Amino acid sequence: MLQAQGRAVHQCDSGWVPVFVDQEQSISLMSVGFLLERPDEAVVWRGPKKTLIKQFVSDVAWGELDYLVVDTPPGTSDEHMAAVEALRPYRPLGALVVTTPQAVSVGDVRRELTFCRKTGLQVMGVVENMSGFACPHCAECTNIFSRGGGEELARLAGVPFLGSVPLDPELSRSLEEGRDFIQEFPKSPAFPALASIAREVLNATPALLC
Amino acid sequence: MLQAQGRAVHQCDSGWVPVFVDQEQSISLMSVGFLLERPDEAVVWRGPKKTLIKQFVSDVAWGELDYLVVDTPPGTSDEHMAAVEALRPYRPLGALVVTTPQAVSVGDVRRELTFCRKTGLQVMGVVENMSGFACPHCAECTNIFSRGGGEELARLAGVPFLGSVPLDPELSRSLEEGRDFIQEFPKSPAFPALASIAREVLNATPALLC
Repeated sequence: MLQAQGRAVHQCDSGWVPVFVDQEQSISLMSVGFLLERPDEAVVWRGPKKTLIKQFVSDVAWGELDYLVVDTPPGTSDEHMAAVEALRPYRPLGALVVTTPQAVSVGDVRRELTFCRKTGLQVMGVVENMSGFACPHCAECTNIFSRGGGEELARLAGVPFLGSVPLDPELSRSLEEGRDFIQEFPKSPAFPALASIAREVLNATPALLC
Repeated sequence: MLQAQGRAVHQCDSGWVPVFVDQEQSISLMSVGFLLERPDEAVVWRGPKKTLIKQFVSDVAWGELDYLVVDTPPGTSDEHMAAVEALRPYRPLGALVVTTPQAVSVGDVRRELTFCRKTGLQVMGVVENMSGFACPHCAECTNIFSRGGGEELARLAGVPFLGSVPLDPELSRSLEEGRDFIQEFPKSPAFPALASIAREVLNATPALLC
């Protein structure tokens, strides 16, 4: 999505140098993908994965960061636990929990909310993804994956609901082609939802904005 | 999806008795969900997950089965490895690999195909899910998540392409409400695709059909 495939991670005195994805070096990335020899190599790490996750926090020369975003797959596994533990000394702002509108997905996410509570990770809020689709031909909206699950979940868990992101072919296209969504697709259906969620996250971190 | 939430697993002399989801006892289920006290409990197992996966194969009184389907999340983790190892003595037919049409998802699935090759698991074929959406109002089709990724992937990997399942609100609804998709939604857009994929899987196992 960030057109960083095939880029390499280098060593410097203070650790691994992350990969910069833009000219201004405003976004730096670290991924196990950069450590593999070939992009279709399966990551069949057995055992020291926990160590690797820790190293991604402590051994990368991140420099000064405004935000560190850890994108995890759904679940409540050893790896999630390792990420929470590695970040604990830095007092993370919390988890942004993403669900689709269906009951099945909401069930998974309920377990994630329990995981957050158990591990002492604050929940910044719930985002509902794949939330309805407005046909580009006739403009009629279809709730392909049911509706309202995210909002209901946030209500039940007593955490903020941050918004619903609709299914959007322009967002998919932007990610497929590694294009700048903010610059190039400001009129796409997902744009206002994503902008509003971003504002909510910024509002949750006033100290950083001073 | 199978309306089995809250059901309990019992012990008998030959092991755990799986949960039956229909009157005819033609489908039996085992899930870690049945072993939790509350449905929103996070599964924060540390360590013996491998053991649990092994037990689900060896310590459940499955009886005579035509098919054992192991539904895994995407990935190539310790848990996938444990499942492959536990099933190896039973000579599994192989992996049914599911992708969405986008390049991002196809990348993940390429790693899964490498994982199958490395662990000696045959690949029965690739299925493309979320493959286009026909608007129920105007019948126009939109490829919300790009298109053709699954077929291209199968071609590159030299494995069969088994079909594309479109986005289908009726399928979502059937799963949400635990209804019988085959009986109640035979005219839904996903039906012919799923029926054809099922036939392909049956054809790949001729010995069982005699």
